[in-house]
Amino acid sequence: LETAARHLLVEYWGCDASILDDAARLERVMRDAAVEAGARIVGSLFRPFDPQGVTGVVVLEESHLSIHTWPEQGYAAVDIYTCATCRPERAHALLMEALGAERGETLRVKRGLPSGMEPER
Amino acid sequence: LETAARHLLVEYWGCDASILDDAARLERVMRDAAVEAGARIVGSLFRPFDPQGVTGVVVLEESHLSIHTWPEQGYAAVDIYTCATCRPERAHALLMEALGAERGETLRVKRGLPSGMEPER
Repeated sequence: LETAARHLLVEYWGCDASILDDAARLERVMRDAAVEAGARIVGSLFRPFDPQGVTGVVVLEESHLSIHTWPEQGYAAVDIYTCATCRPERAHALLMEALGAERGETLRVKRGLPSGMEPER
Repeated sequence: LETAARHLLVEYWGCDASILDDAARLERVMRDAAVEAGARIVGSLFRPFDPQGVTGVVVLEESHLSIHTWPEQGYAAVDIYTCATCRPERAHALLMEALGAERGETLRVKRGLPSGMEPER
């Protein structure tokens, strides 16, 4: 099915606070993660917040990667939404390392299936 | 909890194909949906594809709304990821109408809870 896609939701805890507060670094990391997953990047938009935290999105063809960070909590919420032939798990592995995460909780959801979404841990 | 957020994944089927192929219109609609949910917009990035389809993201403070469309299939994949005090359901109701969708399948996921993600239909 052309519309089929793989969406991996990830909660990263115990991350390095200084990395989570560095918008330029996170933009590089998230773009690297998109390439690692085999996706084609269309553009990206990252924004630091005051007093801290970053929100950023890497726009892909028909999909995206996003990150929202709370440095003070060591927490980052990430979505790795890719085409059906991409490998979102590779992006996840890269991010575990790049964010210095102690723990990454994932939820996989198949998108674009007329039979419905299938959440799976 | 500061990190708590509400993430609504939606699959829209049976949508109006011409609307799903109009990037400028979808950008207006998605920004309206973000405001309707009570979110604050930081920026947006929308891109039409050849021969058809649109990918777009509205970046919010610590969250986002995204849409990926397949006009030829009448299908749009949407993520309404908002703060805990926002109302993603309102954005969903607006989008059902604005996309001319026959059917909208939702999956709710609580994000940012140390106890873990809770997917719920």
